[in-house]
Amino acid sequence: MFDYNGSFQSAVAVLKREHRYRVFVDLERKVGQFPHALWNSPTGKRDVVVWCSNDYLGMGQHPKLIDAMCAAARTMGTGAGGTRNISGTNRALVELEAELADLHSKEAALVFTSGYVSNHTGIATIAKLLPDCLILSDALNHNSMIEGVRAADCSKQIWRHNDLKHLEELLCRAAAGRPKLIVFESVYSMDGDVAPLEAICDLAERHGAMTYLDEVHAVGMYGRRGGGIAERDGVMARIDVIEGTLAKAFGTLGGYIAGRSAIVDAVRSHAPGFIFTTALPPSIAAAATASIAHLKTSGAERAAQRAAVAATKAALREAGLPVLDTETHIVPVMVGDPAKCKQASDLLLDRHGIYIQPINYPTVPRGTERLRITPTPAHDVRLVRQLADAMVSVWHDLGIALGRYHQPGDQRAQTVAAGG
Amino acid sequence: MFDYNGSFQSAVAVLKREHRYRVFVDLERKVGQFPHALWNSPTGKRDVVVWCSNDYLGMGQHPKLIDAMCAAARTMGTGAGGTRNISGTNRALVELEAELADLHSKEAALVFTSGYVSNHTGIATIAKLLPDCLILSDALNHNSMIEGVRAADCSKQIWRHNDLKHLEELLCRAAAGRPKLIVFESVYSMDGDVAPLEAICDLAERHGAMTYLDEVHAVGMYGRRGGGIAERDGVMARIDVIEGTLAKAFGTLGGYIAGRSAIVDAVRSHAPGFIFTTALPPSIAAAATASIAHLKTSGAERAAQRAAVAATKAALREAGLPVLDTETHIVPVMVGDPAKCKQASDLLLDRHGIYIQPINYPTVPRGTERLRITPTPAHDVRLVRQLADAMVSVWHDLGIALGRYHQPGDQRAQTVAAGG
Repeated sequence: MFDYNGSFQSAVAVLKREHRYRVFVDLERKVGQFPHALWNSPTGKRDVVVWCSNDYLGMGQHPKLIDAMCAAARTMGTGAGGTRNISGTNRALVELEAELADLHSKEAALVFTSGYVSNHTGIATIAKLLPDCLILSDALNHNSMIEGVRAADCSKQIWRHNDLKHLEELLCRAAAGRPKLIVFESVYSMDGDVAPLEAICDLAERHGAMTYLDEVHAVGMYGRRGGGIAERDGVMARIDVIEGTLAKAFGTLGGYIAGRSAIVDAVRSHAPGFIFTTALPPSIAAAATASIAHLKTSGAERAAQRAAVAATKAALREAGLPVLDTETHIVPVMVGDPAKCKQASDLLLDRHGIYIQPINYPTVPRGTERLRITPTPAHDVRLVRQLADAMVSVWHDLGIALGRYHQPGDQRAQTVAAGG
Repeated sequence: MFDYNGSFQSAVAVLKREHRYRVFVDLERKVGQFPHALWNSPTGKRDVVVWCSNDYLGMGQHPKLIDAMCAAARTMGTGAGGTRNISGTNRALVELEAELADLHSKEAALVFTSGYVSNHTGIATIAKLLPDCLILSDALNHNSMIEGVRAADCSKQIWRHNDLKHLEELLCRAAAGRPKLIVFESVYSMDGDVAPLEAICDLAERHGAMTYLDEVHAVGMYGRRGGGIAERDGVMARIDVIEGTLAKAFGTLGGYIAGRSAIVDAVRSHAPGFIFTTALPPSIAAAATASIAHLKTSGAERAAQRAAVAATKAALREAGLPVLDTETHIVPVMVGDPAKCKQASDLLLDRHGIYIQPINYPTVPRGTERLRITPTPAHDVRLVRQLADAMVSVWHDLGIALGRYHQPGDQRAQTVAAGG
């Protein structure tokens, strides 16, 4: 008889050997005190400062969101009670979809239980509805997009990350009348770099391709109303499908797509990951709507985030830490070794009360292991100073090289999947 | 240039022609008044009685859940702020997983953003970790399991629904030492029938197969502590992986698996649909834990549900409506025609203020279209009477045959996917 338990144990043992075994940090956030949180460590509760949250603007502790969530729970209950089609469509969700369509100036929007699901089932469904579709996918796309492309079960081509020439070559090679779907992100989560949206739109229009843009690391944070990089760059109307999340800058849970009614209705009617799953609870939807509405008119959070990001980059660079250059709110500090990356993270947590999760393969390519820092409006100058000092001390303790980071040539293009 | 919009429009037009186009009913539940809800109809707000909710026990409006949700939101915020690995593991989620492991008397449990995702990524990951795995899948498994089997990308065989002889045949044909994964449900959602769990466990043990059981339509409702049919039948310890949902009887959102630590750790470490997605917010986790804890000790909701189900079945049968025989809380009333099924649902809503979504292909096989009724503890005798009268009146108006339903031979086995 087959040894099932042995199989599962050895699958985990491999990860341990390669320093890729993930140990979750059990956190208790305290509303009003974020980025401070309680860490339920093996030896008891300890205060830590979280420096790697994707609650990028700290909206998860905003009174408007908390009030909206509680009010909805008290009036409409804690669950949706069904799929969207079978009793699960609730008022709060309908309002959220209207808010999202407005945010992206699109005819319609559709909410999913997560950004992961929206990419997975969204990309697969769109591609399947187009006869003989060719998908053109950026090499550094997130795992949810890769899985969506895979599930589409059509032909695909991978273009080198943000390489317009390569994308153009592939577009030129495809037949003119063939449906083509270009899938890409605006802000890439691990390197914090930004896609040339306008040039991609130019290429798409010239070659009759459809565009599907993942803005999960941008919505709420870029553009006048938080519509993302596409809003910032003035190309929102030229993107066919904008995909976003409610679980990062918007501080709640869920994902969505926005686009023309015909597209959204087709996905709504055909996507298994949308049809066969329980709808988001009204409490989550109401909190998300409050967040989006707030960030449409308030620029204060975006300005404070930009200031904290600039201060952090400056302090770390000045301290001689190998910061990867980015134009976004994502600040990767490179280590380049999985064991040291994990040790650095452990030391920061144990000795300095600073929580930054190590990012190892397969989330980033081997040799580019890093600490990924995301300063929020709540990270003040004192915390930035503390961070820089602690990191320098840890770098010394572990004998990791200080000094400017030199990006290896092609390595980034090997990334398997980002974000987990 | 390819006409994208035309493609999407015609994909939807097909559904309209076949009476399969889904129109969502925009509901506003009122805590304390469920199953009453406000329907935001095209002509304004109307009071309706919901008869098709999967909030099977009405826990979504239970004060304990609402209080737990609000307390967690007020203390820990509205979002998790990251994936489980990157700052998203929160105390409430850790407690929820301990509660779930205890519910099913398993070493460990793992929470996903939905039951759909737990099946999809759970089944695929488990099968991929077993060399040359053979999946044996029940013919009526839910779409999330079908997609999980597909994503596993290994050999699979479909056994006729609940047919032990067929399952045994397939097991006998497979090599003795080969890993085999039997995936099946306990309560099937559209017909409300129950799998012979004990006999399946016997077969699995005899043939050295692993068992993966979906209990989403059973947890909270069957077994002494709400552990599901496996608890009721005394076979919980013989099932390797129990998958469940927090979004039906438990009244919130999310899904999970429970099993031995080695299995759960392997899935935790390898499943893309778990790794690369934001964790559930503490508010959802806290409400779910409160619900499970309550239903572990309180049998009142289960007893009241059984009474409402018995009363509903009796009243509909007495009225001559074609009720499908079931031993569970799911009460299908057969129509057998997609257009009439939709019309019956529309008439019930418009004229009688009764909301029951039509269930058409592909959720059920063509020719077995139905109204699927799920009585909860909140559906009292008066509402049951009202329902029976309204349905008889609609059946007359539409000229649908009354009388006992005779199940067609093989047709159920053609089901493509259930539950949406």
